[in-house]
Amino acid sequence: MEQRLPVAYRQFEKICGLLEQHYRDVQDIEFTVERGKLYILQTRSGKRTAQAAVRTAVEMVDEGLIDRRTAVQRVDPEQLHQLLHPTLDPAAEVTVLTTGLPASPGAATGRAVFEADRAAELAGRGEPVILVRRETSPDDFHGMVAAQAILTSRGGMTSHAAVVARGMGKCCVVGAKRLDVDEADRSFRVDGHSIREGEWITLDGSTGRVVLGQVAMVEPRPGEDFYTVMSWADDIRLLRVRANADTPADAQRARAFGAEGIGLCRTEHMFFEGDRIRRMREMILAATEDDRRAALAKLLPMQRDDFVGIFRAMDGYPVTIRLLDPPLHEFLPREADELAALADSMGIGLERLRHAVDVLSESNPMLGHRGCRLGLTYPEITEMQARAIFEAACQVSEDGVEVYPEVMVPLVAHVEELRREAALVRRTAAQVFAEAGREIPYLLGTMIEVPRACVTADEIASVAEFFSFGTNDLTQTTFGLSRDDAGGFLPAYLEGRILPDDPFQTIDQTGVGRLVEIAVEGGRRVQSALKIGICGEHGGDPRSVEFCHRLGLDYVSCSPFRVPIARLAAARAVDR
Amino acid sequence: MEQRLPVAYRQFEKICGLLEQHYRDVQDIEFTVERGKLYILQTRSGKRTAQAAVRTAVEMVDEGLIDRRTAVQRVDPEQLHQLLHPTLDPAAEVTVLTTGLPASPGAATGRAVFEADRAAELAGRGEPVILVRRETSPDDFHGMVAAQAILTSRGGMTSHAAVVARGMGKCCVVGAKRLDVDEADRSFRVDGHSIREGEWITLDGSTGRVVLGQVAMVEPRPGEDFYTVMSWADDIRLLRVRANADTPADAQRARAFGAEGIGLCRTEHMFFEGDRIRRMREMILAATEDDRRAALAKLLPMQRDDFVGIFRAMDGYPVTIRLLDPPLHEFLPREADELAALADSMGIGLERLRHAVDVLSESNPMLGHRGCRLGLTYPEITEMQARAIFEAACQVSEDGVEVYPEVMVPLVAHVEELRREAALVRRTAAQVFAEAGREIPYLLGTMIEVPRACVTADEIASVAEFFSFGTNDLTQTTFGLSRDDAGGFLPAYLEGRILPDDPFQTIDQTGVGRLVEIAVEGGRRVQSALKIGICGEHGGDPRSVEFCHRLGLDYVSCSPFRVPIARLAAARAVDR
Repeated sequence: MEQRLPVAYRQFEKICGLLEQHYRDVQDIEFTVERGKLYILQTRSGKRTAQAAVRTAVEMVDEGLIDRRTAVQRVDPEQLHQLLHPTLDPAAEVTVLTTGLPASPGAATGRAVFEADRAAELAGRGEPVILVRRETSPDDFHGMVAAQAILTSRGGMTSHAAVVARGMGKCCVVGAKRLDVDEADRSFRVDGHSIREGEWITLDGSTGRVVLGQVAMVEPRPGEDFYTVMSWADDIRLLRVRANADTPADAQRARAFGAEGIGLCRTEHMFFEGDRIRRMREMILAATEDDRRAALAKLLPMQRDDFVGIFRAMDGYPVTIRLLDPPLHEFLPREADELAALADSMGIGLERLRHAVDVLSESNPMLGHRGCRLGLTYPEITEMQARAIFEAACQVSEDGVEVYPEVMVPLVAHVEELRREAALVRRTAAQVFAEAGREIPYLLGTMIEVPRACVTADEIASVAEFFSFGTNDLTQTTFGLSRDDAGGFLPAYLEGRILPDDPFQTIDQTGVGRLVEIAVEGGRRVQSALKIGICGEHGGDPRSVEFCHRLGLDYVSCSPFRVPIARLAAARAVDR
Repeated sequence: MEQRLPVAYRQFEKICGLLEQHYRDVQDIEFTVERGKLYILQTRSGKRTAQAAVRTAVEMVDEGLIDRRTAVQRVDPEQLHQLLHPTLDPAAEVTVLTTGLPASPGAATGRAVFEADRAAELAGRGEPVILVRRETSPDDFHGMVAAQAILTSRGGMTSHAAVVARGMGKCCVVGAKRLDVDEADRSFRVDGHSIREGEWITLDGSTGRVVLGQVAMVEPRPGEDFYTVMSWADDIRLLRVRANADTPADAQRARAFGAEGIGLCRTEHMFFEGDRIRRMREMILAATEDDRRAALAKLLPMQRDDFVGIFRAMDGYPVTIRLLDPPLHEFLPREADELAALADSMGIGLERLRHAVDVLSESNPMLGHRGCRLGLTYPEITEMQARAIFEAACQVSEDGVEVYPEVMVPLVAHVEELRREAALVRRTAAQVFAEAGREIPYLLGTMIEVPRACVTADEIASVAEFFSFGTNDLTQTTFGLSRDDAGGFLPAYLEGRILPDDPFQTIDQTGVGRLVEIAVEGGRRVQSALKIGICGEHGGDPRSVEFCHRLGLDYVSCSPFRVPIARLAAARAVDR
């Protein structure tokens, strides 16, 4: 153009400079030259990859075009996924079977499986698997957790598979329509290829490609510009960012992603593994308090060791530990053969076991005998957990680790529940400190996750030393809407615009948000400096982070891989 | 005394007069005379039976001692049960087996049964039964509904059996400790008597007596004083009192108890009977919208006939009809043999039926695909129900009946849900009116039963023409507490005073009540004269009625037999 249309070219060069100066951003300019005359048709800030976004932001700051606060506005937090997840080795030769919608970024390779149970089973044996379904439902959740990635032939960017996978930070391709999935036959067909269970496939969640066989991966290298932008974000933001982490490994990952503490450590996850589930079941099936205490005594050292690991990983940072939350029946098996095996291994009659399972089963477990209701009916569980926390804290403190435990009582609806649980925890702490000859400073607070806690937050703040909003459950109770059962109508609600957004993805500011606001006002009326955070999945959603900033919360807590997103979103919130 | 201690006697007579004048109430006075000297030890307003209470209240008004507003304060609303329920014929000779706690007033005679299923089965064949259990749990609910009365050997005045029976206005004796109930053997033993399933027993819920065999009953005759006091109450109260009634028979009973309309007519109850459940199942299992419409067309005339009956019984009074509320799986059988029978009778494969039941089953049905969510995913259900309502209204109106239908959309969480349902109902109404050449004035409003509806009541009031608080569900969602599953911990909560009251018995004013208040404020900000009522079981609880009065609600709605209690409580609320 410079040679063939030199006049227009020089004009164009000048106008581009003007537009870039004016908008202080990379411009995507449409133009045409007719009979030597230049026409500028349209200009807009250019779309770019995450790499390009952080690069241009840093360059523009270097060139003095924009300041750092403007620079963080130039990077879309959701784009960071591209910098944080593995990608296919660009050098690898690949056979693309088909292309679906890029529902959740990253890339993964694994054996195709067609059922959630099978996915869990193979993954349990250490096999990387990719769950392939026509579409997923909440029943497939455990299979999605177990899989490296998820592929569906139906559904769009807001389908169940897409939403859940993004929440888990897991690679996902949906709506790959040319895929003919035969779940019963455990195979899929596409353009003459037929893939059976166990055969290798590879997914690219950033482009939607479905690839035959195993492909080499490139681990993500965010690059220097990314770290530069994140350091600016950390300087600018007022919200702290913590991670939800249940194991020492999670805690380390969280630290690597820049988490400034753990906002939610779910103690029940510790009870599902290996030998522990057996001890847990002994505890649940105990006929007397003495038997229950005996079983709990065996769980104590296991739980203490977990806390030791987590405290060490979080040296210098607070760790919020939630006391046992799920209903006890979640720890018991359901299928007939599993029940028989359990009865056998525990040496109790199958009838007694069945009866125990029956007695514990619930119509609406989400609203049942769980949370602090467990600790109040079985105080010995709270005692064991408190002892494990404080013994672990004393132990690591002796080794020079700075430890800040925050004990969190779940599902409080009435201040009296918290008062009783708090008394028990404090008594146990005092005992452990006396035994250890060492005092550890700690906080005792509560999840705010039912509407009653929000409207009585002033009463609750007379006992709690911190609030943490459990926005998942708060959304469920505020809407009267079970996330597990929403599959039957929520997709239609979103498609038909009955709801503007999925309230489990981004916080419903008008309804749930109003209750959060009422609770913040109530709590801070009683304790003006009350520490308040959120620990639902919303903690990693940029719009929800912005909302938390506006409400003056102290921190958000989210899955480790979402921590950078939350850090950037928190910085952007300052100027929005 | 007059003869032996004349001085003290005259003094005593004078003091009694003074005390009664002072307290303007019958006095229960303790006194002693020592060495001729009179000592008055204590005085308090005397306890009395309901008959005595209304009698003395009326007499004192007649004597000019108190005014009518004071008179209504002298009668405890809960006592009215004594005037409204059957009693044992005092002339009958009875063999008292034992005596328990008088948990819920009334008397009943029936065959002893020891299981809820059996109770439902025998009652279904028209046999009066009395459910005898060691204690009851929510699983026994259907048996309690079916039984004439309930007897337990364990539990106190706030046990499950006691609370539920009082709520249902059903005779109940609990804690009859000498009863040795052997549920497996279907018998109980007491003092040498052994009663097997099918043998007759009789309960007196006002005294706690358990009586052998059948005993003649005296139907309640409230007496003239009762009607006098109730007429004063009606003059004084500002709250209107409606009844919850689902059938023409219920509606007639409600009118007899003084209900000024129906506050809650649950349309789903109409679908469980006889041939209807079959039509309902055809509708649920329909593979296409056309099939569903065909099944609905068969349900339409049945539903219309019910409404005709109810509208006739409520001539001149408003009738609030709630659109279909429960999740569809509640209409399907669960047991293997029932499923097989259904598959057979419907001519569909058992596998297909099983699959349909599986797909519809939910983790938390209370928070699932129900309420307006059904009408929004299957608009043809809403259309059929609206058509049945308006066709019935046109039909009775033609006969000169004054009909005021109020169509109520359940479980609204977001205004857009109501907006869509309202559009559908209004369109259908217009069609029916055009066909009938007749217009019926009607209101279109919503249940307020999830916290989100409370905090966004202003938005909802931009569409709703009335609000009706469903305080049962609102209590469940506000606390995050399923009533069906509360048996595992709520009794311990009440016994240990973790909660001051059972929130399902009397409204939790601090928490649930605060949300009700927020909703009233929000709704009336948009429509200052918005009609607001409540239709949970709290509508028949005196303390809750008082709360509703204080909030300026227009009406409460409760079970028919609680209507007089609510009328009196509403009058008492005026001066409290």
